[in-house]
Amino acid sequence: MELYDLEPSGNCYKIRLLLAFLGIDYELKSVDFMGGEHKTDRFAEMNPFRELPVFKDDGLVLRDSQAILVYVARKYGGDAWLPTAPDGLARVMQWLSTAANDVARGANDARLHDKFGYELDVEQARRKAHHVLELFDEHLNDRDWLELGRSTIADIACFPYLALAPEGGVPIDDYPAVRAWIGRIKALPGFVPMSGLA
Amino acid sequence: MELYDLEPSGNCYKIRLLLAFLGIDYELKSVDFMGGEHKTDRFAEMNPFRELPVFKDDGLVLRDSQAILVYVARKYGGDAWLPTAPDGLARVMQWLSTAANDVARGANDARLHDKFGYELDVEQARRKAHHVLELFDEHLNDRDWLELGRSTIADIACFPYLALAPEGGVPIDDYPAVRAWIGRIKALPGFVPMSGLA
Repeated sequence: MELYDLEPSGNCYKIRLLLAFLGIDYELKSVDFMGGEHKTDRFAEMNPFRELPVFKDDGLVLRDSQAILVYVARKYGGDAWLPTAPDGLARVMQWLSTAANDVARGANDARLHDKFGYELDVEQARRKAHHVLELFDEHLNDRDWLELGRSTIADIACFPYLALAPEGGVPIDDYPAVRAWIGRIKALPGFVPMSGLA
Repeated sequence: MELYDLEPSGNCYKIRLLLAFLGIDYELKSVDFMGGEHKTDRFAEMNPFRELPVFKDDGLVLRDSQAILVYVARKYGGDAWLPTAPDGLARVMQWLSTAANDVARGANDARLHDKFGYELDVEQARRKAHHVLELFDEHLNDRDWLELGRSTIADIACFPYLALAPEGGVPIDDYPAVRAWIGRIKALPGFVPMSGLA
């Protein structure tokens, strides 16, 4: 089992976090992102989208952090992190789309601009980030977890870039329910941190 | 079973298409999008993200087209449109993320600008759309379907906005493998069209 990884990537961190919660050993392959290793043909053979993370297990090569969470949760986690029943599976799936779209194009984009110099409309990204944080804060106002009354990969998929939002000029002080939820995730057995988490 | 729907929405069309392939009867609830019905409190109670589609079944209320595809496929389609095994499930999941992110922020955004007057950076959206179309064209060059050698909800999730790309000033003439794939989807038993499809 190999994770092609970049330490400051919240998308890579999602996978490290789930593997830590499940107590699974794996090989961490650090990719020289600054040196452009992800732009090489060798990397594109693993992932034509030239993005991290990439996960290899038993001959399978997967791209996309949400897809890798689904794979690891289903293969090694039983029903603990991802339900098999249609309604529970779909409830979790809603937040995997939110992670891939709204969270990525808001808080993640703002951080890519501020921390890594990406050229993008950072004001628009920050507006989106705050809008999404408002929706999360309202949703979490009377819930401990995003769905099903327990921690699932929905929480793991959405948590990193919301907790990293201050690194993109998006303070989260005004979102108490989001901050309490971040605290609950950090208190889960097996939790591992990454640098920059609020 | 109720689908809160907007005819010209590719995201709503995904659900109509899967339900048609499965031969499932449902109630179509047309939402007065131009009149701002999705901005009302009553709509926000169903979907705080105030987006379409919304799907109701048996007391469950789901937002997000990808999540609804997962639900319908798993509950009513057996393994036909979404595998249960971890590797197949995750392979399909990769493309649901691509639909929620790359396809949405490329071809879909360009069409939102041109057809519905959304204020956004249409040149950037068109560049993203062509980049994604190149990746799809390469992937489909030696494959009939996105994954598993058969039609799945991966194809249903990605197909509408790529086939609607010309409505956003993104011609698809230079992507022969994508056009052949669109033709295969259109030839599936039970296929229903929507207006504007290439």
